[in-house]
Amino acid sequence: MSSHSTRRGVASVMTSSTYRPASAAEARFLAEYDASAYATPLVTVDPVIVTLRDEQLAVLLVKREEHPFLGSWGLPGGFIDIRNDADPEACAVRKLKEKAAFVSPYLEQVKTVGGRERDPRGWSLTVLFFALIAEDDVPPIDKRLAKWFPLSALPDAMAFDHRALIDCAIRRIRAKAEYTALPAHLLPQRFTLSKMQRVFELVLQRRLTAGAFRRRIEPLVEPIADCFETASHRPAQVYRLRPDSGSLIFEQPLKGARRK
Amino acid sequence: MSSHSTRRGVASVMTSSTYRPASAAEARFLAEYDASAYATPLVTVDPVIVTLRDEQLAVLLVKREEHPFLGSWGLPGGFIDIRNDADPEACAVRKLKEKAAFVSPYLEQVKTVGGRERDPRGWSLTVLFFALIAEDDVPPIDKRLAKWFPLSALPDAMAFDHRALIDCAIRRIRAKAEYTALPAHLLPQRFTLSKMQRVFELVLQRRLTAGAFRRRIEPLVEPIADCFETASHRPAQVYRLRPDSGSLIFEQPLKGARRK
Repeated sequence: MSSHSTRRGVASVMTSSTYRPASAAEARFLAEYDASAYATPLVTVDPVIVTLRDEQLAVLLVKREEHPFLGSWGLPGGFIDIRNDADPEACAVRKLKEKAAFVSPYLEQVKTVGGRERDPRGWSLTVLFFALIAEDDVPPIDKRLAKWFPLSALPDAMAFDHRALIDCAIRRIRAKAEYTALPAHLLPQRFTLSKMQRVFELVLQRRLTAGAFRRRIEPLVEPIADCFETASHRPAQVYRLRPDSGSLIFEQPLKGARRK
Repeated sequence: MSSHSTRRGVASVMTSSTYRPASAAEARFLAEYDASAYATPLVTVDPVIVTLRDEQLAVLLVKREEHPFLGSWGLPGGFIDIRNDADPEACAVRKLKEKAAFVSPYLEQVKTVGGRERDPRGWSLTVLFFALIAEDDVPPIDKRLAKWFPLSALPDAMAFDHRALIDCAIRRIRAKAEYTALPAHLLPQRFTLSKMQRVFELVLQRRLTAGAFRRRIEPLVEPIADCFETASHRPAQVYRLRPDSGSLIFEQPLKGARRK
């Protein structure tokens, strides 16, 4: 019914193997400690995987095969399994693989949301992640399990509070795009600056001035020698991210083009 | 032994009261769902409360009165209580009150950290928060329960991974101080610009150029009419944050003073 571990026989794998108790009293306390005696929240992890398709942001959703919300679309997340998951990130990677046969890209934590109302099974907490992946790098997904939805055409009724979680992740991505080069993760490894600017504009939902954009971006990219794209009327230099572009924080935030 | 709810009699308060099942099958599923049959992580909340004391950042710690880490200093956090806590923030506020008789200031979520090794009682997840509070606004704390420690003199051995959690929260505060006016929360409601600059310098751990600092800050503050401070050789205008300073993001990040 659900893939998370049942309690039976779990005590031995729940506790740290490397901890040394500070006293005999503490050792006794730990030996007698029964975590299952306490009512804990349900704990899940939900990844919002974002790419660009047809000049729109799109997210990966799965159709639920279990109650509650059977048949509804939702994020490809699920319960933390304390037997198998080293940490919340590992749980997200595992869930993407199980639920969408999707090889996970880089994940970044957004926020943890919890309360009584978000899951009809009980008080639940979910650790929300986002990832950005370039369209060219998207691995084949199992179409029977998962589907990409453009943000403008998300399903009407989604499982749990997953619509609000998606909105929260997208807000974070858009906010970070103002002062970091985060949208670069939506680009292929080689790109022209006008392609890069277009990707930033799609994330930010506004036009940028080319001059200001290039001044911000140029310290973070490097031209690839003798590599030009010739689709437009004159050849455009092809770039890649500098290996030392690091945390990719701009010297100055981006400014939009002035409206006429 | 521990203040979180025991499982007995909890089922009825664990589930949402407002959810309407989509089908009779789902209603049956929910009626039969027994969250206690699954091994879930221990779930705690840990707040890092930061103020300035003697020109240093200081954090509020409590001495643990229970196993594990009995007698060690740690953050004033604890288990989420699914009977009483509406969400993780509410749990942090409750824990501050219980553990330090401290009235909570604004809390901001930093990150959720989880795994098998961080708590000897088992696989545990903690939602980490920070808060900044002006020295003048610090409510009286119960000295038998809690104590302020300057960052430069934290206790050698702390409970759990709380030292790493503090480092994580402080890193976040310092990073945000580069592109937001976050350190303003460490100031009293009325301040001179040189006092404000000093607070930013203490957070960022570097000198700032006065001219550049004022240009960044001035859109966020407003002078208080006829209010001057006369401690220095000439009266200094007193300011307050503009009510519309909102998310307090700078137009341009701060730059340090050039080293000579």
